[in-house]
Order: sequence, then C-alpha cells, then structure tokens
Amino acid sequence: MFQNFETTSDVSQGGPRLEALRKAMAAEGLDAFMVPRADAHQGEYVADADARLRWLTGFSGSAGQAIVTADRAAVFVDGRYRVQVREQVDLAHFSPVNFPETRPATWLREALPDGGCVGFDPWLHTHREISELREKLEAENIAFVPVDNFVDRIWPDRPAPPAGQVRIHDEAIAGATSAEKRDRIAESLRQNGQSVAVLTLADSIAWLLNIRGADLPHNPVVLGFATIGSDGAVQLFADPKKFDSSIRQKLGNEVAIIQPDGFVAALASLSGPVRLDPGSAPEAVFSILKEQGTEVILADDPVILPKARKNPAEIQGMRDAHLADGAVMARFLCWLDANAPGDLTEIEVVTRLEEMRRQAGVLDISFETICGVGEHAALPHYRVSTESNAQLEDGKVLLVDSGGQYPNGTTDITRTVGIGDVGDDVRLAFTLVLQGMINLSRLRFPKGLSGRDIDPIARAALWSVGMDFDHGTGHGVGAALCVHEGPARISRVSEIPLETGMILSNEPGYYREGAFGIRTENLLAVIPADSPDGRDMLGFETLNFTPVDRKMILDGMLSPAERDWLNAYHAQVLAKIGPLVDEDTRTWLEKATAPL
Amino acid sequence: MFQNFETTSDVSQGGPRLEALRKAMAAEGLDAFMVPRADAHQGEYVADADARLRWLTGFSGSAGQAIVTADRAAVFVDGRYRVQVREQVDLAHFSPVNFPETRPATWLREALPDGGCVGFDPWLHTHREISELREKLEAENIAFVPVDNFVDRIWPDRPAPPAGQVRIHDEAIAGATSAEKRDRIAESLRQNGQSVAVLTLADSIAWLLNIRGADLPHNPVVLGFATIGSDGAVQLFADPKKFDSSIRQKLGNEVAIIQPDGFVAALASLSGPVRLDPGSAPEAVFSILKEQGTEVILADDPVILPKARKNPAEIQGMRDAHLADGAVMARFLCWLDANAPGDLTEIEVVTRLEEMRRQAGVLDISFETICGVGEHAALPHYRVSTESNAQLEDGKVLLVDSGGQYPNGTTDITRTVGIGDVGDDVRLAFTLVLQGMINLSRLRFPKGLSGRDIDPIARAALWSVGMDFDHGTGHGVGAALCVHEGPARISRVSEIPLETGMILSNEPGYYREGAFGIRTENLLAVIPADSPDGRDMLGFETLNFTPVDRKMILDGMLSPAERDWLNAYHAQVLAKIGPLVDEDTRTWLEKATAPL
Repeated sequence: MFQNFETTSDVSQGGPRLEALRKAMAAEGLDAFMVPRADAHQGEYVADADARLRWLTGFSGSAGQAIVTADRAAVFVDGRYRVQVREQVDLAHFSPVNFPETRPATWLREALPDGGCVGFDPWLHTHREISELREKLEAENIAFVPVDNFVDRIWPDRPAPPAGQVRIHDEAIAGATSAEKRDRIAESLRQNGQSVAVLTLADSIAWLLNIRGADLPHNPVVLGFATIGSDGAVQLFADPKKFDSSIRQKLGNEVAIIQPDGFVAALASLSGPVRLDPGSAPEAVFSILKEQGTEVILADDPVILPKARKNPAEIQGMRDAHLADGAVMARFLCWLDANAPGDLTEIEVVTRLEEMRRQAGVLDISFETICGVGEHAALPHYRVSTESNAQLEDGKVLLVDSGGQYPNGTTDITRTVGIGDVGDDVRLAFTLVLQGMINLSRLRFPKGLSGRDIDPIARAALWSVGMDFDHGTGHGVGAALCVHEGPARISRVSEIPLETGMILSNEPGYYREGAFGIRTENLLAVIPADSPDGRDMLGFETLNFTPVDRKMILDGMLSPAERDWLNAYHAQVLAKIGPLVDEDTRTWLEKATAPL
Repeated sequence: MFQNFETTSDVSQGGPRLEALRKAMAAEGLDAFMVPRADAHQGEYVADADARLRWLTGFSGSAGQAIVTADRAAVFVDGRYRVQVREQVDLAHFSPVNFPETRPATWLREALPDGGCVGFDPWLHTHREISELREKLEAENIAFVPVDNFVDRIWPDRPAPPAGQVRIHDEAIAGATSAEKRDRIAESLRQNGQSVAVLTLADSIAWLLNIRGADLPHNPVVLGFATIGSDGAVQLFADPKKFDSSIRQKLGNEVAIIQPDGFVAALASLSGPVRLDPGSAPEAVFSILKEQGTEVILADDPVILPKARKNPAEIQGMRDAHLADGAVMARFLCWLDANAPGDLTEIEVVTRLEEMRRQAGVLDISFETICGVGEHAALPHYRVSTESNAQLEDGKVLLVDSGGQYPNGTTDITRTVGIGDVGDDVRLAFTLVLQGMINLSRLRFPKGLSGRDIDPIARAALWSVGMDFDHGTGHGVGAALCVHEGPARISRVSEIPLETGMILSNEPGYYREGAFGIRTENLLAVIPADSPDGRDMLGFETLNFTPVDRKMILDGMLSPAERDWLNAYHAQVLAKIGPLVDEDTRTWLEKATAPL
C-alpha cells in the first residue's frame, strides 16, 4: 500500500524530548528555539529524517511550527489541524496556538523579554521568514541567531536521509530536453544580468533536469540543491548514490552531480549577481552569499513559471493520465454503486481504489486519499485512520478525493456520492457546489486576470443562499510532479495572472460540521478562448472524465447553460472512458452519464 | 431645460489663446504649463469660471488635461473622449494624447530638456499628483513650480465664480443633525490625535453641514473649503452671499462662514496635526501648511466613509426618490411604447423624460441623460447634440441612462428597449447583460470583500461567450448628492471593502461598435444578509422599480433562479409603482411586468 492508516504520534515522548531540548538551549544561552515542520526545500512532504516537529511534539500535520522557550512550548497550527494537534501532543507540555490568528512574531514578543535571543536552523527557514521576524521584533531588540539544529543534537536514532533512486522523466512526456530547458533558464538569467541562480525547490530541479526521484512519499522529487549558470551549466548537490550510470550519462557533463556537503563551499565560490528566491531559499544560502560579499538579487525561482506553463506534450501527458485515471474511477464508482453500503468501511474503500490505480500502472498515489463518510466528509482534509475508520451507511454521503502518479501525469479528482437516499438539504448543497464547479469550468475570462478574480465564480451559487467554503477553489498541479504546485492558484489571495498551459484544480465544496460534506473536483488546463469581439481571452479545458452523481442533483435548479455543460460533459465521459473499461463498468457508465 | 444639446466648443479660438499663454510662460521663464480640467475641489463638474481647459483648447469633456510647451500642446484624454477631442480642438495647434496609455510624466520627460521648468496652479492639482510628478521626473532635474494661473491672466472675459443660493438639507432626510455629524467626525479626529481636518471636497462639506447648493449643474454642492476641529467647530470658506439669514441661523455659531479669500490666512494659523487627504486636497493647501512648519497627517478625508455608509433615513430617502422616479420611468416607457419610432428623435426623448421628471418634482437631473439609438447606444457616454441627433427606428435599440435630483434622493437608472423587432444577436447580448445584472442583484457575499471581488459576477455570463464591457460595473451614489460618489465602486480596481449602507450602481453592458449597445442598470443598497451557517454576509436591496423590456429577453437562457428573481422583481414593480401612475400607464405596466 502507498497509504497506511496508522496514527504515528506518540504523546508520551514529548515531555522528555522537550526537557533535552531546553537543556541544549540553556547551555547555549538561547531564550527560544524554533522547530518548523519544513525541511530545506519547503515542500509539502518531508523525509523521516526531517520530521523534527513530529519527533519533538508528536504532531504529524503537513504544516506547523513549534517554538520552545524555557517555560513554554507553542505549537502553531492552522484551521485544518485544530482538533488533530490536541490529540497528538501532550497538552501538559505543549500549547497549541491558532495560526495565522496568532503569528510567531506576536507570540515571541509576548513570550520573551526585550533583548531575548531566538535560535533557529538557518536551513529550515526562508530568507523572507527570518527577515520579517527580525524586522517585526527589532524594537524589542530580540535577536535571531542561526545555530546548528538542536533537535538533531538530541535525536539519538534520527533516520538517515532518504536515498531514493532517480529515474529519467521521458523527453517525449516532458516536451523538451533538459538541455533545452536549461538554455531557456540561462537565457532568462542573461537577460536579467544574473550570472547564476540557486535552486532550492526540489520540484524545480526535477523539472529542469527531466528527472524524478523517490525520496518522499507521493511527490516524485529528488531532495537536493542546484545552481544553474547563465551558460546553462548545472551543479546538482544530491547524493550521487541515487544516480546510476545510465542516468549520469543521460544528464551529460553539463550537469555535475556533487555530494550535498559540497554545497556550502560551492555557494561561497559563486560570482554574482546570484539570483535567489527569498520566499523559498533558506536563510543559510542568503547569509553564506552575503558573508562572501557576493551580490544577491532577490527574485522568484526562475524555473517556477516555465514549469507552471505546461507545454503541449506535458498537457497531452496529463490528458492521457486522466483518461487512465478516468477508467479507474469508473470501475471504482461502478464497484461502489454495486457494493455500498454493505459492510464497507472508509479504509476498505481507500484500499480498493488504490488497488485499482495500481492495476492501471500508477507509480504512487499523488497524495493520501481523503475518504470520508457523513460527518467525516465535513472535514476537508480528513485522513482515515484505524481509529477513525467509519462504516458506509445508507442516507449518508461519501466524499473521495484522490489521485495517482502516472508515468505521464499527476491526477487529482474528487467525487461525492450519495449512499442510498440522502436528504434534499444535502442535494441542495451538492447542486450549488456543482453549479460553481460547472460555471468555473465553462468560464472564459480576459487575459491578465488572476485566480483571485475568478474565484467568486465558483462560489456565487453558494454565496447567493448564504453558504461558502473555507478553502481556496483550486491549486496548481504539476505535470507528473507535485499535485500541489505554485505559483498560480484560484483563491482569494492569488494575484498571479493565469496563463495558457497552467493546470489548476476546480474544487468548490460545502461542509456542514457534524453532518456532511460535499466537494466536486476536476482539473482544468488554461487554454486560449474565442471571442466574437476579438478580445484576448482565456478559458479552460477539463482534464478529468468521471461521472457526477446524477441522483444528487436537484436538476430544476440548473440553468440551461449549466445543464448543457453537464450533459455534454457526461457524453464525453462515456465516449472517452467507455472504450477503456470492462462491460459491466460500461453498462454502469451509460446509466451514470445519461442526459438530465 | 436642465440639459441642452449644443456643442459648445469653438475650434477657432485655440490658436490665439495658445499664443497668449506661451507669451506669458516665456515672460516667466517656464518651459511648460499644465492646464487640468479640474477645479480646486476635484469634482466631476466645474463652473464656467473654472472651465479653463475648455476655454483654452475647445475640449469640453469631463476629464482631461492640457500641457503646453513652447512648441507643443498636448491634450490628454481617456478612452471616452478620443473622438470628441478631435472634433473640438484645432488639430493644427493641439495634439490629442491617449491617457492613461501615455501619462503626463512620460510625455514631459520626452518633451522637455533636462532641467526644464513646469509651471502649475497649485490649487488645481492634488498633493499626490504633484508629488508623483516630482518623484518621476527627479532624475531629469525637471522642476514643478507653483505659479498663479496663467490662463486666468490671459482670459479677459472670464466669468464670475458661481453664487448659487444655499438651501438646508432636511434633517429628517439626512438622518442626523449637522451637529451630530460634526461630533462624529471630531471624535474620530480626537481618536487619531489630529487637531483639525481640512475639507476640500464640496460633497463632503455639503453632507457634513446638511446643506445643498446650486453652484454646479446636477451636483447640488456649494463650492468652498472648510476646516473642522477636534472640538467639532467648522470654518466654512464660501461666499457669504450664498447663505441667507435663516440658513446662517440654522447652521449656528459653531459654523463660521468666512470669505473664501480668508482661507489661506486661516490655514496659516492652524495648529497641527492637520489631517489632509493627499488624493484630493490641492497642493497649495499642503505647501501653505508645510511652510508654516505645521504638522500634516496625510489620510483620507474623514467625511468620505461616513458619507458613503448611508444611514436608515438616507436609505429611506433614496427608496422614496426611486419610487417617484419609478413612476416617471413607467410613464416614460409607456409613452415610448405607444409612440416609438414615429418621428421621434433622441432629443425629443430626452426632453420628454426631463419634462416628466420635472412634473415629479426634481430639482435637477442628476447627470446629462445618455440617450442613444442603434449605433449611438454603443457609445457608453454618448451625449446627444443637435448635430448628432438621430431618429428612432424600427429594429434598433434605444438606450436611456438618466436620473433625477429629488429633494430626498438622487436617482440613476438605465433601460435599453427594442424598437419593434430587433435581431436575436441583440437579444442574446441583452439577455447576457441582464443575467449579469440579476446575478449581482441577488448575490450575497462574505463581509470584507470589495467591489473588485464581486465585479466578475456581473460579467460571467458575457465572459462565458467571449464578450465583456470596458467600464466598471458600478459606481457609488450619493444620497441627494452627487450621482458619482466615492470611495467604493464595483470595479476591477476597487479594493475598498463594501459595507452596509453603501449605495452602488449595478450596470453591466455590452457595446458593439457601429451597431448597438445594451446597458441595464439599477441601484443597490448594501444590506446585511442571512446565512444558514451563521456566516457574516452582505447582500443587496434593489432601489429602482422599472420594468426590463421582456421582449428583449431570450428567456430559454435564464436559470430558474434568474427567472424567479426577474418575475419577483416585476411583481414588485407592479405592486409599488402601479398605485402611483395613471390608468393607461398601469395597464401598460401590467403587461410589462407579466411573469416570464
């Protein structure tokens, strides 16, 4: 299984570990030490060797930070983890703090005396983060002191760093050779008068070099750092053992593979101007360059936008992966329709779906499946464990948000189905969510708009009856890379203009606490759109082809355009997926895609 | 008539006047002189005495600026006036410049030598405007020198400033006494540690003092300046002749009425900190304070937000005014239906509508009526003149955008009607515009959102077929004040959060150049809205009650919710307006409001 259902936290260890950390802090004269969840690459997943926050506190969520002082230990978590943190940490020692309502700077100002001294590992915090903390606490004369990692000092059985084998990502799917990509990036450095860029995001490196790794669950990246010069030459700092000889040969001699511990010396020898992304590069990289007197230009990672704007081959790979995944989803929903509720549990559903994806050739799932019955569906980020595992039940909804890492693309889809007859209040919410999903899918919009500008389209139907949902409408998705990929999002806070080739999720939802939750999600590729007036407009191509549960729709609520879209979509589902599935599934698919 | 149909420009005068201006500039050693359209109060209308741009260049639009050098004379105009400016100025002497594509700073940088000297009247440019110009042209060492107005020097028959009589705005309609309003503003000054605020916007002063004036067409304001102290005492600098004794008595001895020429001396004697709005206060006010060493706090005019958030009495006044106006519009549309096309012209339509508004007791129209047939309707700001006046014709649309200044409220409404049978392409556009208008009208949305966030709701239907319109969706509207009122708007560029009591127009449109134009407009008041989930949401109350031309709607396109809204709206129109009109009109109204 790619997914397990254990709860890995161990509440009892928090106290002794905290005590050991405090001793180390006291010995060095620190008033506080910060333990973020992030590693040096600021990705969504960390290796076990980097799971310092979980080791120290027991909290295993995907975002958070602890700050420890002599007498307090705060664990900052966002709205997703308010309940979970209280179950995972020892509340006698740790105090959960609501983030972003309370930010670390605010907490530190209150917790420390003026002139206090905060230690941090400069590899785990970005330059921007440390700069902002320093600026905010300047008046209180609070110092932020880079130190080696005190958690690592007191962690006797810390796991070794991951050593997943690297594979080549096929050029036919990548749509460009690594040399072509490196040329493009080098050209942009030359145009901006930059001699070299330092890359610290693992997915940027994977995209640039057409490689994929196995260092982390679900995100097929190689943990490492890289530099790319304005001549296109790359130094890659990653464990050479991960690269077999055929891969070295493929990468060629313009890509030097160097032991990770050579990175600091290499940084020190760079000639500027060096381009560095303040929002993702570790403070350590910045300070090493500054100490050498090297000119640093703070600008976004030069790979991010080229990676986000998928080329035609990448989009075709994503289309193909979604067809394969569409066949899986059709089999899965057909099986569910025949067998639910039975004695099925959430874990059995997850397991069965993963098994079907494995049969379809996935290398991994693209994230841990969210599979919730009834009130569990009201938790947008619910992860089923052996403890929470619930049985399917007539009259309840089942929300399944899942995806696979296919060789040619990363998939992501959410469908909510009704088990037996669900109430009209649930169907009302389902229909409003679907209207938002459809209206975003069929939208065209003027070029230049950002996710912020179109986010309301997916909410208007819900808003108009006083409902809403408390997450963004969509995230960027990598092409056979990370399922959560920047920089563009469809969200109230995203001001990045949408561009042709970007792939984003479209996943409005509705969550009634303690009762039920709805989410319907397809991925969209941004494409040029026609205008009878010659306006420069964009639109979307839908990538997923999976039926929406027809019996959940109050179809008297749909507008003609919404109904037409859904019927046309369902006709496409049948045409594209029908030929890919067994006869039973096809029979089910015909019913599931019948016109409204 | 409140409106005339003349074209007032005189192309022939431009050359000699320009020559006179250049002589004055040369005598003072200036390389350039700026002649903005604005007066010292930065409103939409200016008095004849302040129409310097029109006098110098012939251009009579409501926004623009001339910059004159020894050998060039640029007239900056925005998209609305690209055609008009070429008809009104002598192109042998003046060069139209597209604004904002080319901004004055850019033009000056190119037109002047380094170290050039630009003269300007510091009463006609805001502090922000001059600060930005100075900053942008600092590198070129270009100086901006405040001087007395050179146009006034060479304008022999310049009209006297207006001396419209002031009237009291009834407290029952204002919803608060002036003393109460002054107390509120004074309290906010005290809270911010400010000793006095300088008010330079005429509508701020009118609102604060519960007075209305007759200095300008269509905007019932008194031209003047004021200061308000943190004790609530006001000095009003306006011609005392405008105030009769009963008004002086009503204003009381906390409001001193002082000759305008006393303003400079009063400014010089203020003790700081003085609050001043950099976006509207003249540079002169800022520099007088600075020269005295008075502390200036740059912040928005303290009256703007209280004025924008209408109180219940103001909203009731607006409701009542719109009922009266709804009766006018019903009579008008009934008359039009019976008589169009006949031999009617655009001017006759405007004249008839104004006559009906006069009979309903308006004090003025609230802006010049936009009344265009066919291709004239495609010009969003079309103003009919004796030269352009077109006949109504079967198969064409008629767009009428108009409003009245009633004693209790300011109205604004646009309806587009089909004369006889119009084509389905026109009806398609009409329906898409209507869908946008309806969907904004029925929207609820989370508190904290701005006009930018909901603007797409009025466009989504058009966008989804590749159409759009090139103006904002809505502007703020004053309560028995200016029909265009800041600060909130429904527009891509408006980041001001919407708040309960704000009144905004909802006027999506579609314009096909050379063919036809559509606009449908109601005013909306922002109100608290219910949420089944206890969310803090806002919604809208529609103020206008006038039928939408049913025969223009392709009703198969409407969603059930859109159709329900329109039918409920039309039922309200009949219920509210039916009792206010004659029997013929009521009979027409019954048909016009029949359910779809």
